[in-house]
Amino acid sequence: MIIVMKADILPESPETALVVQMAERYPDVHAEVRKIQGATRVLTEVYLLGSTGNVPVDIFEEFPAVEKAIRIRERYRSIGRHEGQAESLGFEYNGVAFTQENLHVFAGLCAVDNRTNVEVMFKALQGVGLQTARAGAYKPRTSPYDFQGYGKECLPYVFELAGKYGIKVVAMEVTSGAQVDEIFAALAASGQATGVMLQIGTRNAQNFELLKVVGQQHELPVLFKRGMGISLDESLNACEYLAASGNYKIVFCLRGMKTQYGDPHRNLVDFGHVPVVKRLTRLPVCIDPSHSVGKKAQAPDGLLDIEHATAQGVIAGANMVLVDFHPHPEEALCDGPQALLMNELVPYLRDVEIVRAAYEQRRAART
Amino acid sequence: MIIVMKADILPESPETALVVQMAERYPDVHAEVRKIQGATRVLTEVYLLGSTGNVPVDIFEEFPAVEKAIRIRERYRSIGRHEGQAESLGFEYNGVAFTQENLHVFAGLCAVDNRTNVEVMFKALQGVGLQTARAGAYKPRTSPYDFQGYGKECLPYVFELAGKYGIKVVAMEVTSGAQVDEIFAALAASGQATGVMLQIGTRNAQNFELLKVVGQQHELPVLFKRGMGISLDESLNACEYLAASGNYKIVFCLRGMKTQYGDPHRNLVDFGHVPVVKRLTRLPVCIDPSHSVGKKAQAPDGLLDIEHATAQGVIAGANMVLVDFHPHPEEALCDGPQALLMNELVPYLRDVEIVRAAYEQRRAART
Amino acid sequence: MIIVMKADILPESPETALVVQMAERYPDVHAEVRKIQGATRVLTEVYLLGSTGNVPVDIFEEFPAVEKAIRIRERYRSIGRHEGQAESLGFEYNGVAFTQENLHVFAGLCAVDNRTNVEVMFKALQGVGLQTARAGAYKPRTSPYDFQGYGKECLPYVFELAGKYGIKVVAMEVTSGAQVDEIFAALAASGQATGVMLQIGTRNAQNFELLKVVGQQHELPVLFKRGMGISLDESLNACEYLAASGNYKIVFCLRGMKTQYGDPHRNLVDFGHVPVVKRLTRLPVCIDPSHSVGKKAQAPDGLLDIEHATAQGVIAGANMVLVDFHPHPEEALCDGPQALLMNELVPYLRDVEIVRAAYEQRRAART
Amino acid sequence: MIIVMKADILPESPETALVVQMAERYPDVHAEVRKIQGATRVLTEVYLLGSTGNVPVDIFEEFPAVEKAIRIRERYRSIGRHEGQAESLGFEYNGVAFTQENLHVFAGLCAVDNRTNVEVMFKALQGVGLQTARAGAYKPRTSPYDFQGYGKECLPYVFELAGKYGIKVVAMEVTSGAQVDEIFAALAASGQATGVMLQIGTRNAQNFELLKVVGQQHELPVLFKRGMGISLDESLNACEYLAASGNYKIVFCLRGMKTQYGDPHRNLVDFGHVPVVKRLTRLPVCIDPSHSVGKKAQAPDGLLDIEHATAQGVIAGANMVLVDFHPHPEEALCDGPQALLMNELVPYLRDVEIVRAAYEQRRAART
Repeated sequence: MIIVMKADILPESPETALVVQMAERYPDVHAEVRKIQGATRVLTEVYLLGSTGNVPVDIFEEFPAVEKAIRIRERYRSIGRHEGQAESLGFEYNGVAFTQENLHVFAGLCAVDNRTNVEVMFKALQGVGLQTARAGAYKPRTSPYDFQGYGKECLPYVFELAGKYGIKVVAMEVTSGAQVDEIFAALAASGQATGVMLQIGTRNAQNFELLKVVGQQHELPVLFKRGMGISLDESLNACEYLAASGNYKIVFCLRGMKTQYGDPHRNLVDFGHVPVVKRLTRLPVCIDPSHSVGKKAQAPDGLLDIEHATAQGVIAGANMVLVDFHPHPEEALCDGPQALLMNELVPYLRDVEIVRAAYEQRRAART
Repeated sequence: MIIVMKADILPESPETALVVQMAERYPDVHAEVRKIQGATRVLTEVYLLGSTGNVPVDIFEEFPAVEKAIRIRERYRSIGRHEGQAESLGFEYNGVAFTQENLHVFAGLCAVDNRTNVEVMFKALQGVGLQTARAGAYKPRTSPYDFQGYGKECLPYVFELAGKYGIKVVAMEVTSGAQVDEIFAALAASGQATGVMLQIGTRNAQNFELLKVVGQQHELPVLFKRGMGISLDESLNACEYLAASGNYKIVFCLRGMKTQYGDPHRNLVDFGHVPVVKRLTRLPVCIDPSHSVGKKAQAPDGLLDIEHATAQGVIAGANMVLVDFHPHPEEALCDGPQALLMNELVPYLRDVEIVRAAYEQRRAART
Repeated sequence: MIIVMKADILPESPETALVVQMAERYPDVHAEVRKIQGATRVLTEVYLLGSTGNVPVDIFEEFPAVEKAIRIRERYRSIGRHEGQAESLGFEYNGVAFTQENLHVFAGLCAVDNRTNVEVMFKALQGVGLQTARAGAYKPRTSPYDFQGYGKECLPYVFELAGKYGIKVVAMEVTSGAQVDEIFAALAASGQATGVMLQIGTRNAQNFELLKVVGQQHELPVLFKRGMGISLDESLNACEYLAASGNYKIVFCLRGMKTQYGDPHRNLVDFGHVPVVKRLTRLPVCIDPSHSVGKKAQAPDGLLDIEHATAQGVIAGANMVLVDFHPHPEEALCDGPQALLMNELVPYLRDVEIVRAAYEQRRAART
Repeated sequence: MIIVMKADILPESPETALVVQMAERYPDVHAEVRKIQGATRVLTEVYLLGSTGNVPVDIFEEFPAVEKAIRIRERYRSIGRHEGQAESLGFEYNGVAFTQENLHVFAGLCAVDNRTNVEVMFKALQGVGLQTARAGAYKPRTSPYDFQGYGKECLPYVFELAGKYGIKVVAMEVTSGAQVDEIFAALAASGQATGVMLQIGTRNAQNFELLKVVGQQHELPVLFKRGMGISLDESLNACEYLAASGNYKIVFCLRGMKTQYGDPHRNLVDFGHVPVVKRLTRLPVCIDPSHSVGKKAQAPDGLLDIEHATAQGVIAGANMVLVDFHPHPEEALCDGPQALLMNELVPYLRDVEIVRAAYEQRRAART
């Protein structure tokens, strides 16, 4: 059960304490107070865990400080959009707001290869007014003998350059708690020059130990990539591990599904699920057109497949786009063939702008 | 090999005959003259079949009436977009043009149930200015004990009402040559009150005998639905059976793929392949959001998943939309839960209009 | 509802007529009398169709000639194994009995190429005591430009040679009613030199029109191959179309499923479903190791993957094996790489024998 | 490149040192000496890593102590069966030999629930002469709110009881390095009462950090379960991470693939790949019929689907079987419905025996 407090009630307010006290009178019931950063306001919610089956709803709704009490289904307890929860689970990080209503483009290098390419990239992003980037330091690879990323070695210059060019958030995959520690250390060493969004890759979607570790730090937001070979429901349950560990700064990312039907694309683009994830959860939703499409083919209308896939996510309300660019794709250490070129950055963003405007027009027509 | 004649050369022109004559001098080579209805003009193409490996290209390019000679790869010989073939394989039928550049919405009943519902539907379409509809008479069903459609019994009133309300083309699935004959007979009996686009359902995507029969009549256009369980390449090869039998009036339809990943949608929406089919072939591309999504869920932004899926197809350049509406979905004989209501028709079309305008803006930005 | 008559009651017995009469007193109920060839005896069953919901079971069980009355679930009405139906739906054709208890190997040419190869093949089968063979005359192919089989042209010599070498049943795919007619004509012309089992290929698993046509002739048995891209339940429902049209001489064939997981095999071997099909239906179950595995790889233990797949089907109780052999695989018109050689026939059959003996030992240990 | 030393040459022999010295004369080449426990003998192999492209093969074959030098393909460098490597990568652990030639059944509790059930189980195994068991302490679960296993709390009594009843090896899933440490500690505390085989679950098949941690300890063997949603090739590459970290005591486990085609089984049984893994690698191959089938259905022949699946693995040469038993499945904390009962243990093993004898007969017929 979730008890949503009225707008002005804080987690530390005496009214909240009263609700907790009442709840814990029931045997085997434990209450947790959570501060939810919604798109437009901060909410205090009290989560009742344990044997809540016999706890009545109305007893709480009689409290003047309680807005409503919601009996929740078991699944997606923390990230789910339960009956009556209109507010999305947005958050702000390093001055950037992430909600189910807005849109950010994270463009950049799939894998950091050298300082020059990082600098060219970040400078270009600054030139077009972007404050969000991708830059992979740790690269899990199918074979143990493939390049695995420059890791902590490259973090100092990545963060320094991000700071120099006004990048507020860099998305970056991690595969262990040790890497999270390295990132914290490098951020500190850089004088917090920028911020990091930790990516959980598709191969680790059900690596629950990693999810717990990443969820136990509450500072850096997490980009959770849908898993391969499992259902959307299973991916959402895995994502719940993050929230169950206390980190609610989560973005859920669609990245195409590996099936025998995607060909000639690398994966079968699954952005039809953008509205589904927005309905089932309160999380902002990201799309990754580069890994979904996986190649630089162009349609007869002059637009790239990656641009069409991006448009398909954005027209349905996606909140974040993760897209590979590279100054010299032929030098890229991985996934070069899918990276867009620097001179494609402006037209790409212009295209996103057209489509986002259309999405806003669609949404406005319904309200 | 395909020899494309210059713009003013007709199939019956003596220049065309000369090309044929030259081609057939080579042993085991047979030439076929085809009239290709492109988006902006009519083209004459000479197809060389058989042992064309030793036929040189330049010998034809020296003819003043020849625009170019194209050596084609084996696959999608007739429907494929081969090197140098910029023109799409559009066609006109009953006054309606179908190309890779324009867009038509076919709205209507998945399965015809009674005259009243058909009349309500067609009248509503006329009210919003649509001249294209769907109305299923023959319904192949998973179990032999389920309702299989009213078949030829309902054709007279369907065609009569289509004529009454100005519907120019009705899309309708067929599963046998006998049904095609019934449709021809009923159209004749109605005084050609309307036109019919024959649908090949996903279950029959590799029913080559049906494809040959439907391809051997050259009057009615064909809507070919991508097959389940096979690759896009295999579906395109199957579609080629239609063209190999002489019917080039083909629209290729994406309708979602059955996988374990689509849930909670009925199928995994595959509209990321819209630009792919437009690149690999010269066919107009249709999307079927109703069967892809399969349910009437709504996103928090007030738009239905079916509308989001439609938008995803249209923003990427889809040329046709097949969508289920029903005056009383609870009475529908099949697939009721996915049908939109009559009062949802105007907002649906308004939404398509917004997205189509955005697509045209995207395309214009590239030229 | 199914009313099973006692052992000595025939379809034409007056007791059966009485049951029919009683059943049809109920409004909208129609009764059909069927003669079921079980493994050990012939049964008379009365099927009640239509609005049977209100028909009581006990009223029939009071008839002395009735063994039991079974209320059936909707699915697999005719082929299903319903509560209380222990008897399998076996049949005898041209002197060969097909049941859920015995085993037949159909070895031979995937596609007939010439008279010599057919003769070499059939002679070899006679040499090892086999009376069942495969020999494909009609070959549906992915591309319209690939070889489609010699069709009716080769039937005369195939049937003549089958007769000459004592082959009782030849399995052969058909894709249209016209082909069935050609087969009947050629069999007649050969003086019924042999028998034919009609194969429904995986591409036509849901070609309901073909299933109806093939089901409406009750002489030739049918080998139904599981469909690609659909669930086992959907394949069984499709198979039911055959029985619903009156032909109960059906064998259900597993042939591997096309997924992204089968590699390096052509398909993911699905013979784990042998016991499932035997439980859900009363049909004999066939396996097709050649098309499942699709290549001639050998394990370090000296056995071929095709032999291991065969063994996996047989050890679980498969009743029929369809396997490709060819005197000169390099000359084969299709699927040559998966064909076994003539000198592999004896070891192959010896291997089947070892495994079948083990299956019988397993079964005996349970009774 | 791999240089296989002659039978009597040890890793510490001077002849081996000579080979290493010669190899490292080439720039950027590093040599590692490995002791390979084959099925019948111990081999010394020298692995050349780095820029081995220019290193000639014949220079090593001239050494009298060298049996052969094998140029290997990149993939599965350590676990792969390369041209000329006949010997399998077997190993001995705690007195039990694991090879591609023999067979062990690991029966027991999917998840340890209490001491009594563990004792009943182990005692029964002793009663039938088994020295290998499964007993899960750490249970990763789809939802964070499900039971996650008793973890280190139950290890003391599990190991004590294993020792008491003569169990030599207990298979047990781990999901973090911390758990491996707990297991080492508990084994030490028990006085090394038994041994442990660490399982890598299907969800962690591409959790490379875990694979490295588990691979870096060289004492406990590892059971690697094939991953969901990825190809067999990708699973084998992941498994290579273990060997690349120095642990060669690996068994590769097939456990069914999650697809939409497995139903009514939990997964589509993939034991057709038993001979494939034995051919591509030198690892012993395990099958997990309980998780593949996932339910206790019975075929009309009286054998359970789980028994048929087991038989399908064993008849194709599987080397290890992991199967769930439980004294009271209704009390099981997870996967109860697939557990066999204690009174089914003897018939199960008797069935395995029949099938294994048949496999040996098949193999013998080929040599």
